[in-house]
Order: sequence, then C-alpha cells, then structure tokens
Amino acid sequence: MKTLCLTLISAILLITGYGQSADSLLIKKIFNNTLTNTEAYENLKLICEKAPGRLVGSEASIVAQKIMQAYFKKLGADKVYVQEFTTDAWVCDSASVFIVAKGRNIKSLHCDALGPSPSTKPMGITAQVVEVKSIDDVKMLGSEGIAGKIVFFNRPWDHTFISTFYGYGNMVDQRAHGPAVAAEYGAAAVIIRSVTNSQDKYPHTGSTRFNETTTPAVAISTLDADLLSKTLKNDPALKVNIFVDARNLKQISTYNLIAEITGYEFPDEIIMAGGHIDAWHNTQGAHDDGAGCVMSGDVLRTFKELGIKNRRTIRVVMFMDEELYQSGGRAYAESVKEKNEKHLFALESDGGAFTPRQFTINASPRVLAHVSKLQPLFHPYGIDDIKAGWGGVDIDPLQDQGIPLAGYGTDSQRYFDMHHSANDSFDKINLRELQLGCGNMAAFIYLIDKYGVE
Amino acid sequence: MKTLCLTLISAILLITGYGQSADSLLIKKIFNNTLTNTEAYENLKLICEKAPGRLVGSEASIVAQKIMQAYFKKLGADKVYVQEFTTDAWVCDSASVFIVAKGRNIKSLHCDALGPSPSTKPMGITAQVVEVKSIDDVKMLGSEGIAGKIVFFNRPWDHTFISTFYGYGNMVDQRAHGPAVAAEYGAAAVIIRSVTNSQDKYPHTGSTRFNETTTPAVAISTLDADLLSKTLKNDPALKVNIFVDARNLKQISTYNLIAEITGYEFPDEIIMAGGHIDAWHNTQGAHDDGAGCVMSGDVLRTFKELGIKNRRTIRVVMFMDEELYQSGGRAYAESVKEKNEKHLFALESDGGAFTPRQFTINASPRVLAHVSKLQPLFHPYGIDDIKAGWGGVDIDPLQDQGIPLAGYGTDSQRYFDMHHSANDSFDKINLRELQLGCGNMAAFIYLIDKYGVE
Repeated sequence: MKTLCLTLISAILLITGYGQSADSLLIKKIFNNTLTNTEAYENLKLICEKAPGRLVGSEASIVAQKIMQAYFKKLGADKVYVQEFTTDAWVCDSASVFIVAKGRNIKSLHCDALGPSPSTKPMGITAQVVEVKSIDDVKMLGSEGIAGKIVFFNRPWDHTFISTFYGYGNMVDQRAHGPAVAAEYGAAAVIIRSVTNSQDKYPHTGSTRFNETTTPAVAISTLDADLLSKTLKNDPALKVNIFVDARNLKQISTYNLIAEITGYEFPDEIIMAGGHIDAWHNTQGAHDDGAGCVMSGDVLRTFKELGIKNRRTIRVVMFMDEELYQSGGRAYAESVKEKNEKHLFALESDGGAFTPRQFTINASPRVLAHVSKLQPLFHPYGIDDIKAGWGGVDIDPLQDQGIPLAGYGTDSQRYFDMHHSANDSFDKINLRELQLGCGNMAAFIYLIDKYGVE
Repeated sequence: MKTLCLTLISAILLITGYGQSADSLLIKKIFNNTLTNTEAYENLKLICEKAPGRLVGSEASIVAQKIMQAYFKKLGADKVYVQEFTTDAWVCDSASVFIVAKGRNIKSLHCDALGPSPSTKPMGITAQVVEVKSIDDVKMLGSEGIAGKIVFFNRPWDHTFISTFYGYGNMVDQRAHGPAVAAEYGAAAVIIRSVTNSQDKYPHTGSTRFNETTTPAVAISTLDADLLSKTLKNDPALKVNIFVDARNLKQISTYNLIAEITGYEFPDEIIMAGGHIDAWHNTQGAHDDGAGCVMSGDVLRTFKELGIKNRRTIRVVMFMDEELYQSGGRAYAESVKEKNEKHLFALESDGGAFTPRQFTINASPRVLAHVSKLQPLFHPYGIDDIKAGWGGVDIDPLQDQGIPLAGYGTDSQRYFDMHHSANDSFDKINLRELQLGCGNMAAFIYLIDKYGVE
C-alpha cells in the first residue's frame, strides 16, 4: 500500500510537472558536481595506463578490477564484492601478415588476431589469397575455390548510414561469421578488412564465432586491405604469410565486480548501472569500455557526495568478458535468477564517452512510455531522445527475467575510428564529454529510483 | 503476435511517410553524397597546412583565399570574384612571458599576444604583478593599485555551463575589455588567463578592444596561470617580464572571396552561406574557421554534383578578418546595401566541424516559425533544434537590412579546448563530423531555396 501511494504520488508529481522543477534543480546540482569533478577521468586514466589489453583471463583484467575495487572502497560503498564464475578464455601473444614474393616476406601489413583465433604453425601459413565481399561469395566458391587458400573478406564500410552502429552492423558479419564459414570449406586462414569507417593504419580486432572447425583469423587495417586488394588485382597468384601465436584457456576463474549503496526504503529492489572492464589485447580500451565503467562508478560517487538518499539499492557492476564470450553478463543474470534478486532496472554504458545523445530502452511499451516522459528533464544536457532500443551486451541476458534494460547513447560518429584498436587510447577521451556522461547516468538512476519504471 | 502487429504498423508508417516526402529523399541523397565525398576535408587540410596563422594582412590569409578561389573555379561556379576593401590590421612576430627572480628570467610561461597588442621595449617590461578576478577589481584598486604594474586577469572558466559558449561568454570580458581598463589606470602590461575550459599548456589568444590608451597584453595557458597565481601567493612581490614584438598595419587592402551558382528562376535573390577564412597567428584554424569555409564551399559542390537546380542564386562567401576587426563582414554588408542586392537568407558556420546539433535563427518570429517547421527533416542527421539564436559575426552586420540570419550549430563540448590556439589543428577534424556539416548546410540551403523564408 505504501508502495502504491508513493508510486501514485510520484506519478502525479511527474504528470503535473511539480516534480519536474524540483527534479530540474536536483539534476542541475548533479551536473554542477560531475562537471567540476575529475575522479571518473582519473580512474579511466589509471585503467588505461595500468591495465591496457585487459582481455578476460589476463592479469591486466584483474589489475583493472582492483583499481575500481579500491575506488569503491574509498568511496565508502555499503558493499563491495566480487562475483566469481568460470569461463573459457584466450590469449594472443603475437600475429603477423606479410605479402610474399619469391618465397620471401616482403611487405608487412598491420594486423591483429581475431579472438579466439587458433595458432598457425611456427613459420605461419603461406598460401594464395581469394578475395571475397561476403559469406555468400565463400559459399558460391565452395570447397574447390576455398580449400587451402587464405580467404580475404574485404567488403568495405557503407558510409551512408548516419549512426555508425548501423554501418558496423552492416559489415561485421564478415568478422563474426566469415572465418567459421571459410573454415568449413577448408580455408587455410582468414583475413578480415577491419570493421571501421576510418581509413587508417590501425587493425581493429574483435570476436569471431567458430563451430567445429577453426582456422587462423586476423584483421588487417583498412589501408592495408586496400593495398592487398590492389596488389591482388595485379597478381592474382600472390601469396600471403599469416602467423598467429595464441592459445585457448579452459575454464579459468574470473569475476564481475559489484559495489552498492543500500536503499533506505526498498533495500531489496536493485537499480543497476554498469559497463565492462575487459578490453581487447591490442588496446587501452578507453572508450570501449573503460569509460562505461568509470561513468557507472561515478554514479555512486555523485550520490555519496551530494548526499542523495536512494530509496532502492543502487548497484554498480563492472562486467568481465564482454568482448570474447560475454560470460560475465550471463554469469550475472544467472546469479540474479538464482538468488531471486529483484531488479527494477538495468542501465549499461558501452558506446564510449562521446557527447550525450539518447537513452535507448528495451522494455515493455508501458515502461517505455513512463520512462520516456523524463526526456524533457534531459534536454538541457544533450539527451534528445529516450526511445526504444538496445540496452547492452552485458545486461541483455537479464531480458529473460523481464527486467527493463536501458543503454546510455552517445554520439556515434567517432566511435568506430577507435573501436577494438590501439587508437582507443586515453588521449581520445574528452573530459567534458565524460563528465556529461557521468551526469546523465547519475540523473537517470536518480529519477528511476524516485519514480520507478511504471 | 502483438510484437508482429507493432512491427507491421511501424513498417507501414515508415514506408508511407518516407514515400510521401520528396524532401526526405532529396536530403538523403545529399547526405549520401557528402558522406562519401572528401573534397571539403582535403580543402581544409590544404588551408591548414599551406596557410596556418592566416590573420588579416598576412600572406597566409591570401594563400588560403587562393586555395578556395582555385577550388571554386574548378567546380565551375558561375561567378568567382573578390570583394576588395581596406582595413587596419596587425602583425605579431613574437611574445614571451617570464617569471623573474633576482633580476633574471627564470621560468618561461606559454603565451601569445592578444590582437592588437602594442610592442614592448626590446628588453620587455619587468614589473610586479597584481592578480585580479574582474574588471571591477581593477576599478576598485584604482591608479594607485594598478599604475606601473602588470595586471593579471585570472578569473577561471565556470565549468557548470552546459554549452561551452556560455562558459566563454562568462569569462571573455577579461580578454576583450580588461586590457583597455587596466591601460586607463596606467598598467604597465596585462596578462590574461586563457579563455578556455581546458587545463593545458596552450595559450589561447583573441581580440581585445583598446580605447585611447593601449598596453601590451598577452594570454598565458591555464596551467601557467595556475602556476603564476600559486607563485604569487608565496611571493606577492614577484616580478614578471613581458615581451611583445608586434605592429599595426594601417589601411591595408584585402578581400572577401565570393562564388555563386546563379538561380534559374530568381537570379537576383541571393541565399548566402559562408565562414571566415582568417585565423589567429598562432593556429592552423582548423575548426575556427577553416571548417566553416570548406563546409560552405561544399554546398556548391553538392548542388553541382547532384545536379540540383537552384531557383535563387546560391552565394558562398569566404569572409576576411572575423578575428581582429570584423572588417570583412562590415564590408560585405555595406556592399550589399550599396548594390541594393536582395538577400533572402544568410547562413554562417563558425562553431567548428563537430557533430551537428542545431540551427539558430536570428530573424522575425514569422520567419523563425516558418523555418523551424523544417526541423523534422533534419532530425535523422543530428539537428534536434531549429530555434532562435545567433547567426554569426560575419553576417551580423546584415541584420540592419532585415535579412534573416542563421548559424549552423555543432556540439560545443570540444570547441574551446582548441579555440584560438595551436591545438586547433587539422588532426582534430573528424572526417564524418565534417561531412555531416556539409550535408546539413547543403540541405538547409536547398530547403530555403525551395520554400523561401516565410
């Protein structure tokens, strides 16, 4: 009854707009705080510099968790604990791609192995290259066209999508599924054009999904993909040497990191915010997703520092292993189910610390309608839409339990210049853009805590 | 089933809505073109690399105009011509600021002269420093507190403004008017804390306005301003040496550059787009305002390449001297008046090539109401507002003639990190953000040409 009354009052406040002016003031207070605080920025610098290449299973991934764990303890969170789970993992020690002429490696291409590519022999694999634009091309060529060859997926980015996430979605099948299909037709190895809109020297890695058969798989930079394609046109019998030194790790133990401020009214109702702490072996992972971790973490700092009392428990999760097998998100969802924890809402940030644009909501129309009413409160801070859309990879497994999910959406234009490459480094972080992210996430969590989700 | 129905309805709405809007299709065509074209980017690279420090009166300023002139001729614009005018100008050859101890320069601070600072004596000016936070502080200290001293304006940026243009507006009086007031009280020289939100080593220069009395005036970096302030607290009798080698140029001849595609229906009605070609002596001026020039210029390319027939004459103007005396904008407005040219509309871009956010309109409520109805067409391309606001420095003098003015507004968060400093270099330009600006400007000009302004 108490809940009902409070919800009704909240709803009335929200509808009449009375609540909105008080909320506007509180939100302004949140932004005044985040825009003059640099702790999230300093945490991100630490993670990037002390724990680059923090793929699940790496020492760096634990270093990064410990940086955030120490920070949450320093903040005085009510609970800071780890959630252990086991998962397969993968380590890549090195990779190279050379154009070969007269039996010698003559031109090195900028490359990184895709995860979880198997190793080649110590001297690598040398074979002819067959360039394709799609998985269908591979199927059409069949075993006789593919077996023993190096398959080179080179369909370029379509620049006419406005959101670069659509551009990515339109191209990424080559990386995600191309190697598996090529392997089934007996390919000796696979080269992927980096999945990026940028014409640069950086190889952009990422995950690929094998079935039974595997094959060594690498990404080369877009400039080198153009070079290789051009060279192939002049010399279709051209050979390439691919070398990968990598290994699978079986059932290692790792963990998600959790920090909470207990709710004073409904301590058992959980509002979650999070990002993923892991990053590919070739990058500092500044935007992807160090930024999401420190912005989520900053929600706790803001609540603490401004003395905002939360009705529900605010929980921040640093997910492990978004990149390779998404095992952290699954382990988290399983634990929620097992413990029968009541999650009211889960918010993820995994799109980088660019200027704010939107919140996307993956929930029932009823929840969406309720939550999207909050948009005018965010308009001054760059959020022009609260609309239906994706929550995030790590929180997605919570969907089965009917938990409303949300994603913090930033401007996408620069994201794929850096994504999964050495270019995603701390110097690409703009302090104010990160601070605006901290403000928007804290404000959203504050409003969900106050008004609920329906 | 419910999901299926919703999906079907959405699809039908999307299809019919899309089909009905010829404008949406044409605008999509414009963006498909600009997002796959790199000429504006290449022009900007040329301007930045071949003509850095292109302040009015400099050789570089003419080099930049010639780069654009050649480009407009190559495009096959119907008219390409220059509009000569005379103006005072200013050249700075060097500037330095040192902290002095025991009569020797012991610590160099990163500095640039404000325009048009006078020179110091060849050995510079050495004097005690009085730190102030405002012009009122100077007035309160009066002649006895100021005369013979170096006045150090050090009120910092207020980070709690969301648009950084408000932060700039809140701080810039120190630079724009501080030196004149300090000079009237007999200051030996003036140091300004750089007008930027960024804590970095870059001095950010800019214009200052003297009355009768002048005094040498320089900006130091924010980090050095903090250092100087801290050093002064320990040693209030501290002296600083300021050296400036600069000179005024009297009534030089320079020009605005104009290129046009003649309207087929109303050739005498002019729709203008432009930016300013000049940039401070310490910078490549990539965002300010090389970007505005090349995006404006790209409107002509897009019309030409897509075969868009314009009813009115589309005119692009590369304004000279926005930075120092704003003489190009005044000369242009005078010429418009003198020739009795009919300007329907003038659009300026001078906020950098960041991701699109808005168009601001300085016009009658009637024109504003008409033009803001176009906003839904721009929503897919990042323009969330078409609202009342500032047009631009160069087009502002046209206001007296009742001409509707508009500004292309980009995301402001990163702008003042770079503004008027060596940090505003070509490597800070993101290709896609620039291309989106080209698209939005071309689309806006297209719609104004088609529908007029009321």
